[in-house]
Amino acid sequence: MLRTHTCGELNISHLGETVTLCGWVQKSRDLGGTTFIDVRDRYGLTQLVLNTDTDAALRETGRGLGREFVIKVTGKVLERSNKNPKMPTGEIEIGVSEIEILNAAKIPPFMIEDETDGGEELRAKYRYLDLRRNPIRNNLMLRHKMAQEVRKYLDGRYFIEVETPVLIKSTPEGARDFVVPSRMNPGEFYALPQSPQTFKQLLMVSGFDRYFQIVKCFRDEDLRADRQPEFTQIDCEMAFITQEDILNIFEGMTRHLFKTVKGIDLQNFPRMQYADAMRLYGSDKPDIRFGMEFVELNDVVQGKGFSIFDNAELVVGINAKGCADYTRKQIDELTEWLKRPQIGITGMIYCRYNTDGTLKSSVDKFYTEDDLTNWAAAFEAGPGDLMLVLAGTADKVRKQLNELRLEMGTRLGLRDKNTFAPLWVLDFPLLEWDEETGRYHAMHHPFTSPKPEDIAMLDTAPGEVRANAYDLVINGTEIGGGSIRIHDRGLQALMFKHLGFSPEEAQKQFGFLMDAFEYGAPPHGGIAFGFDRLCSIFAGLDSIRDVIAFPKNNSGRDVMIDTPSTIAEAQMNELKIKTTL
Amino acid sequence: MLRTHTCGELNISHLGETVTLCGWVQKSRDLGGTTFIDVRDRYGLTQLVLNTDTDAALRETGRGLGREFVIKVTGKVLERSNKNPKMPTGEIEIGVSEIEILNAAKIPPFMIEDETDGGEELRAKYRYLDLRRNPIRNNLMLRHKMAQEVRKYLDGRYFIEVETPVLIKSTPEGARDFVVPSRMNPGEFYALPQSPQTFKQLLMVSGFDRYFQIVKCFRDEDLRADRQPEFTQIDCEMAFITQEDILNIFEGMTRHLFKTVKGIDLQNFPRMQYADAMRLYGSDKPDIRFGMEFVELNDVVQGKGFSIFDNAELVVGINAKGCADYTRKQIDELTEWLKRPQIGITGMIYCRYNTDGTLKSSVDKFYTEDDLTNWAAAFEAGPGDLMLVLAGTADKVRKQLNELRLEMGTRLGLRDKNTFAPLWVLDFPLLEWDEETGRYHAMHHPFTSPKPEDIAMLDTAPGEVRANAYDLVINGTEIGGGSIRIHDRGLQALMFKHLGFSPEEAQKQFGFLMDAFEYGAPPHGGIAFGFDRLCSIFAGLDSIRDVIAFPKNNSGRDVMIDTPSTIAEAQMNELKIKTTL
Repeated sequence: MLRTHTCGELNISHLGETVTLCGWVQKSRDLGGTTFIDVRDRYGLTQLVLNTDTDAALRETGRGLGREFVIKVTGKVLERSNKNPKMPTGEIEIGVSEIEILNAAKIPPFMIEDETDGGEELRAKYRYLDLRRNPIRNNLMLRHKMAQEVRKYLDGRYFIEVETPVLIKSTPEGARDFVVPSRMNPGEFYALPQSPQTFKQLLMVSGFDRYFQIVKCFRDEDLRADRQPEFTQIDCEMAFITQEDILNIFEGMTRHLFKTVKGIDLQNFPRMQYADAMRLYGSDKPDIRFGMEFVELNDVVQGKGFSIFDNAELVVGINAKGCADYTRKQIDELTEWLKRPQIGITGMIYCRYNTDGTLKSSVDKFYTEDDLTNWAAAFEAGPGDLMLVLAGTADKVRKQLNELRLEMGTRLGLRDKNTFAPLWVLDFPLLEWDEETGRYHAMHHPFTSPKPEDIAMLDTAPGEVRANAYDLVINGTEIGGGSIRIHDRGLQALMFKHLGFSPEEAQKQFGFLMDAFEYGAPPHGGIAFGFDRLCSIFAGLDSIRDVIAFPKNNSGRDVMIDTPSTIAEAQMNELKIKTTL
Repeated sequence: MLRTHTCGELNISHLGETVTLCGWVQKSRDLGGTTFIDVRDRYGLTQLVLNTDTDAALRETGRGLGREFVIKVTGKVLERSNKNPKMPTGEIEIGVSEIEILNAAKIPPFMIEDETDGGEELRAKYRYLDLRRNPIRNNLMLRHKMAQEVRKYLDGRYFIEVETPVLIKSTPEGARDFVVPSRMNPGEFYALPQSPQTFKQLLMVSGFDRYFQIVKCFRDEDLRADRQPEFTQIDCEMAFITQEDILNIFEGMTRHLFKTVKGIDLQNFPRMQYADAMRLYGSDKPDIRFGMEFVELNDVVQGKGFSIFDNAELVVGINAKGCADYTRKQIDELTEWLKRPQIGITGMIYCRYNTDGTLKSSVDKFYTEDDLTNWAAAFEAGPGDLMLVLAGTADKVRKQLNELRLEMGTRLGLRDKNTFAPLWVLDFPLLEWDEETGRYHAMHHPFTSPKPEDIAMLDTAPGEVRANAYDLVINGTEIGGGSIRIHDRGLQALMFKHLGFSPEEAQKQFGFLMDAFEYGAPPHGGIAFGFDRLCSIFAGLDSIRDVIAFPKNNSGRDVMIDTPSTIAEAQMNELKIKTTL
């Protein structure tokens, strides 16, 4: 090793020892005759003292040192006169006798500090410098620790990590695949996996019993803050189990992570039916760090001559507790925010429960104080509360009110990043209607089993069929989802039929799986966690970008290495492809 | 759980308990009135007893059971009258009271036994059935355990596992890249990584200090038994270290694996110069489970009028101890084997040291018994030995003799799969001449640093420059390789120049790395292990196929899922590509 110690480990017990450290110059202060330098590595920061009065060579080298120079220093561990109790190495400093510049550094384009002055683009281009900053490096160390703990937990429960292939087969179902032209099989393509779904099911057919993998997956979709073209899943599957077993084992894993990584003991996770989640929160991933549940008001408000309510499929609201003092301006601003095309309400009704006990609504023309008292009763509102009400078609208005609820939760400080509220959402619908293609799509994926008691409805009311499917939600973010799978060829074929596959298409694309089901497939099910999201929640971040070492931007580009890029004509010729721009 | 126990855990201590097991029917014997069934899962095999005389329903179900049916049985743990000490569950059997068929099974296309009757192609098509066989499943469980132990070892030494991107930039250096057309950036392509080399170096620039990753890599090359288009590396990098530190830490990791996974204590690994490996074994990855080192004979054999030897750049041989009784036929057969185009010798000379003390060569016309005594002295041969000699240009004849040596080692039983002989090969050349392109190529990769004392020779004798590069070889297979890297922009630019890059090309392709070197890059180096090969050596296999769950065949196809395959016209249109068949 070029060093005897790291920059984070020396303390008063090392006094008098001669040590050698390596690291980066964090900062340097010349106090005339004495120069103080903070040298940094991954493990910490150590203060160096250069007596530049007595040592000309040291003075020369010391003067040449800029920020981020890489140095190697040898010296004696001394007790500091001016101790810094905030630093693990704060009791000591190194009286430097030798200093060597291992590498010089140009002035970085932004400050390598916890709070940097670099903009997003600059930091992306110089990602290797951004990664030097403690917050980013800590995120990646957190991620490493989480992966280790996931493996420890699952290995301890007889799960085997099996690597499934990255070069697989393209299937039109689901999101868009990235494809890879095959040189050895001209005109043919591999696809990168959106998940190892079929392979993990085959491993169950093979009797692996318990499988997991922390694995890269790929989706060629337009990107958002929490989406990347490549992302990482904790992918799991078990045989001979019921849904209850999966919930227990993976709730256990999540609790294990919170305990070992964050020192947080979580209680048993509450469970909620999908239908209730939609009714009470307008979302299949409710943030239950706070209440503010939806109150349905059709019975209370209809028939009073207010046509917007009378004609609405659903009138529904929330009680923003303690917000009666919202000014007209604040309410207008909130209404404008809700009118943006992303949410798209046409109007919002409010009713203040003033602290003096009076009730005042924006629709006083139609509702008497008695009527409003009935509203308040429905909302369980009291003096000081503000009732916010939307109306429209049920699906749409619930989605809109979900946005409003989350926004009010944020404004009222009810969504603390250090509070963690996990929730299982159960009994998802098997199918969802897609307006665009005019057919049903699998809500989870085509391999999810319907609840046995609902199978009969596949022909009569496909949209009503519930699946043995479940999501794990934390703080309003879906971090995991899974299902009990179909393990019977006939049922799988029926499912494909309902998804609009001809028998030939089904056989061409998924014949290997349906064939496998005929050779002794056990009952099985599983779950997959979005590992990037899980890490970002643990790190208290909104985006997954900073738990990924080298993320892509919103155009799918890595601006640091400048990819994607053009390739040589010769390479395309070898692959027997050409571009058609 | 559908079961109370697995098929591998019940023993005499469970007597009298009522248990439920799930698994596959391994076999069934109807002894008239009593049916014995072996039920199998990943954990083991348990014997079931069905009293079909007294229970008609049980009789019916029992009769319907075929091999590989998936069943769930409940019954009482009974002591066996006929115990099987070879099975962990051999002392007990289950007196079955209930049996449920969870899934039927067609007759498998080959036997699900340790020794199967299935051919390679059939087993590839039904890989999910082949994976049911114990030897294959055990390989994958071994692989899982090895990965766990690698992570444990490295995590305990402050290495952080960081995921590097899979969608990266295509570079013409090295092997052929797989490419991925970018929909969002039409006309441009990502490449799949051949290794995370540049990213791990950037992580060192970022101060991560110690990095590792067990990671999929990709190479679009024509395939052989030990090559797959996608393969897995244990990829590692460290900062502020010397070559000695890397050798120590990764020798430690290898020993840790042998100890924890195979219970084998390995001694310190010997080290050998690349030049010595080539001279003594004609290979940069010598199998040192046995000696049979090369003996160079120019001084001994030249000048006696035998023109083949006199005109050869190198005359070199091995002593096949105890092979003096090889018949003429055996030697001819060996010679024919060496004449195949893969090896391509034109002839082999031999000299028998008979047990009666006489010497007999195939070139007695040119060499007297005294001459042959000198040969024997050079070979340190004694009675009973057989000297085998080749002649030709040095490089070529060494390669040929390497093949002969390995073949003789195999024939003499000197290459036992349960003996492990690791070896560090050090001081590889930096560059190697490529006849085809008429220029030097990087022997390891362009980021490998030359030995400082050899840098001056870059201009005068590039082929002589040694690198700080090392390989770990076990039993003649390269399982790891690495180097100390260049961390200086100037030296990296010089290296690219010697590899025939123009400054513009170097900047276009690797500018991000050279730029990074200007912002404080620490000295660093690393190593990467071929994880598939390491697993295959641990499993005692010649090919890596059976340590990979779903391998591709020699045409790069997965015949089970039938990929690569054609994709829809619409998908190609979206990607702005077309095929040019």
